[in-house]
Amino acid sequence: MAQRKLGRGVAVVGAGMSKFGAFPEMTTRDLFAQAFREMCATVDKGFDPQTIEAIYLGNYSSDLFEGQGHTAPLLTNWVGLSPRPATRVEDACASGGVALRQAVLAIASGAYDIALVGGIEKMSSLATEKVTDTLATAGDVLFEISAGFTFPGFYAAMATAYLHAYACPTEALLNVGMKNHANGALNDKAQFGQRIADIMEARKKSAAKKGLPIPTWANELEFLRDERANPYIALPLRLFDCSPISDGAAAVLLVADELAAMFTDHPLRVIGSGQASDGALHDRATFTAIPAARLASQQAYAMANVTPVDIQVAEVHDCFTIAEIIASEDLGFFEAGQGWRAAQAGVTARAGTRPINTSGGLKSKGHPVGASGVGQVIEIWKQLRGVAGARQVAGDLRLGLTHNVGGTGQTCVVHIFERA
Amino acid sequence: MAQRKLGRGVAVVGAGMSKFGAFPEMTTRDLFAQAFREMCATVDKGFDPQTIEAIYLGNYSSDLFEGQGHTAPLLTNWVGLSPRPATRVEDACASGGVALRQAVLAIASGAYDIALVGGIEKMSSLATEKVTDTLATAGDVLFEISAGFTFPGFYAAMATAYLHAYACPTEALLNVGMKNHANGALNDKAQFGQRIADIMEARKKSAAKKGLPIPTWANELEFLRDERANPYIALPLRLFDCSPISDGAAAVLLVADELAAMFTDHPLRVIGSGQASDGALHDRATFTAIPAARLASQQAYAMANVTPVDIQVAEVHDCFTIAEIIASEDLGFFEAGQGWRAAQAGVTARAGTRPINTSGGLKSKGHPVGASGVGQVIEIWKQLRGVAGARQVAGDLRLGLTHNVGGTGQTCVVHIFERA
Repeated sequence: MAQRKLGRGVAVVGAGMSKFGAFPEMTTRDLFAQAFREMCATVDKGFDPQTIEAIYLGNYSSDLFEGQGHTAPLLTNWVGLSPRPATRVEDACASGGVALRQAVLAIASGAYDIALVGGIEKMSSLATEKVTDTLATAGDVLFEISAGFTFPGFYAAMATAYLHAYACPTEALLNVGMKNHANGALNDKAQFGQRIADIMEARKKSAAKKGLPIPTWANELEFLRDERANPYIALPLRLFDCSPISDGAAAVLLVADELAAMFTDHPLRVIGSGQASDGALHDRATFTAIPAARLASQQAYAMANVTPVDIQVAEVHDCFTIAEIIASEDLGFFEAGQGWRAAQAGVTARAGTRPINTSGGLKSKGHPVGASGVGQVIEIWKQLRGVAGARQVAGDLRLGLTHNVGGTGQTCVVHIFERA
Repeated sequence: MAQRKLGRGVAVVGAGMSKFGAFPEMTTRDLFAQAFREMCATVDKGFDPQTIEAIYLGNYSSDLFEGQGHTAPLLTNWVGLSPRPATRVEDACASGGVALRQAVLAIASGAYDIALVGGIEKMSSLATEKVTDTLATAGDVLFEISAGFTFPGFYAAMATAYLHAYACPTEALLNVGMKNHANGALNDKAQFGQRIADIMEARKKSAAKKGLPIPTWANELEFLRDERANPYIALPLRLFDCSPISDGAAAVLLVADELAAMFTDHPLRVIGSGQASDGALHDRATFTAIPAARLASQQAYAMANVTPVDIQVAEVHDCFTIAEIIASEDLGFFEAGQGWRAAQAGVTARAGTRPINTSGGLKSKGHPVGASGVGQVIEIWKQLRGVAGARQVAGDLRLGLTHNVGGTGQTCVVHIFERA
């Protein structure tokens, strides 16, 4: 399982995304075209899209969400790129990150010099209950879903195990949501781009308008503690512990390292890539860590020849708040059991020493599942190039990381990027 | 779009498959394990499955067929290969062939030395009508399926165009089915492993047993001409022009060329690989050829540095009889409009000068859609190594080809294999 050296290096030279949200009036094709157009516009020296040689598309289940399969050539055609080879890659919510990895390997193989990586999901066409059922197919239908599990249930089980193992108070989870909403409020692509405080104030105003008693929440924590404002979804997880149902697309342009200077003077070199798999949750020895994430990150660190302390900014897979805490440990940022303390202490905040999910994360930015892994790259692109605007992390950023999980950790893929 | 040289060569050193058919009592996991075990047993010098470093799985839609997504890590776990990276690849009925290509590129990139390629589909759990609907999602749901098209309809439109363009008599299509059933009768893995004549005789016996008038068909052609025996499905395509609904799995072991001798003295080198995409059928300039197949095969020939006349045995995507005829032209075996004449003259029969689908093809062997592209490799493996038994093509076979189509040609992937 040693990570070998790739045949040649690969760099990101363009990155764009649609807004994430619920867009009943738009098709998947529209969303993908938005992301594609924005990506094209970010290529500093410009480029002819017709020089793209292959398309890798991360998508979880347009089959179940939209009744449309074989999406890769369809979307390729829609943005004018037929007859390039178009390949859909699926590993549940890690589909985007795994698509990125396959494109990296394809360029490293010599087959292509220039490849487009897309991520897409349109989930809002289904009723919420149906979305939950569809997402549940990323678990083990035979042994888990048949027993009544859903994804909030899976992560609630992991949270329960974590809280118990590390004497973590339930409320510690809420810090992750508050932080990510604070970040997302500065991201105009975010689905829920409001601070929790903004949401709280809006609720007060709405109550006043309706002539109802105005809630007395003094701060975000009081708001989140209120079971009417923040109901339990699957104990101990509450509404604001869960990422939303989203539509969205993201696109990244990859080129062989030696060509990067034709596109930009500031490429992001993909210096680390790791991917691992696992059995379903019911079959694992631990619920307080995701073994595939530990392995994938070890592979990526070894390939990049860096250690966790070197990473300056990271986008991690916070499908639920507990997932971000566990990820921050799996990635080696904190010791096992210390992730929640770091979150509570503000270490992972934008101004902390270890900023995580400056984009707002899946929690606030949104989680169109097949797009999320590619969307993470957009944020690292912005942060490392210093164009993240109001949410820009201070300092000379050179190294960033993305961490993308499928299911409860049946798949994990980690990438490390270095600004050239 | 020039095909570049890959970083290093890749070889097939093992190949196995489950029986294809309808297996209501088996799960996808069982079928995959069957194929995996048979593959392991074909590795001449033996090997430790734990040395496999990555899994690429071709699957069209376990989502819609079985309500199970995220199948790659699930099946990887089932055969004891967690925590290897496990990636599902989807391009409709070309999923298997495209998975093979991604594994080839991944090994060529240097990321892995040893990779497993699987193909799987379990279609028989759904009612036939539902299967037709599910397969239709591989078309353009927005612009084609909404207008009433199904896959028999698509290929009927292509057949109608072909018959008209090349003054081809409708009955010429029947030759493909007769040939493929004659081949499949010699393949113990085939779903319908009977000659048309066998089926005809069985019908006669059944009639006699029931005391009904015994049909007077004198030969296969008379049987196939009889609208009661061979009803129209979508004019001009009849029942025996269509591949069946199937369950099945296939598995292939790929290794870096330089390691092949550790596994076998008779590896199959993957000397050519091509992949192309296209818009949906309604958007194409021609119905009598599949442009993506032409492009993919040109790429594969260029990479392999061979020409169509060099290919000694080919497995092509005969989801319908017309598809085999068009494929034989797209691959450059025959001029446009000559494919049907070649089929009629026996050129593509096992004893002909250009044997096609010696396995029985999708028509007789079965078409578990995500497995078909990998299943094709099993036949080429057997033919080139001289272990195809009663259906072995005579002569010193060195070069074989596989041709795998997704949808109506939105994807095509072609591989060329050389016996070392």
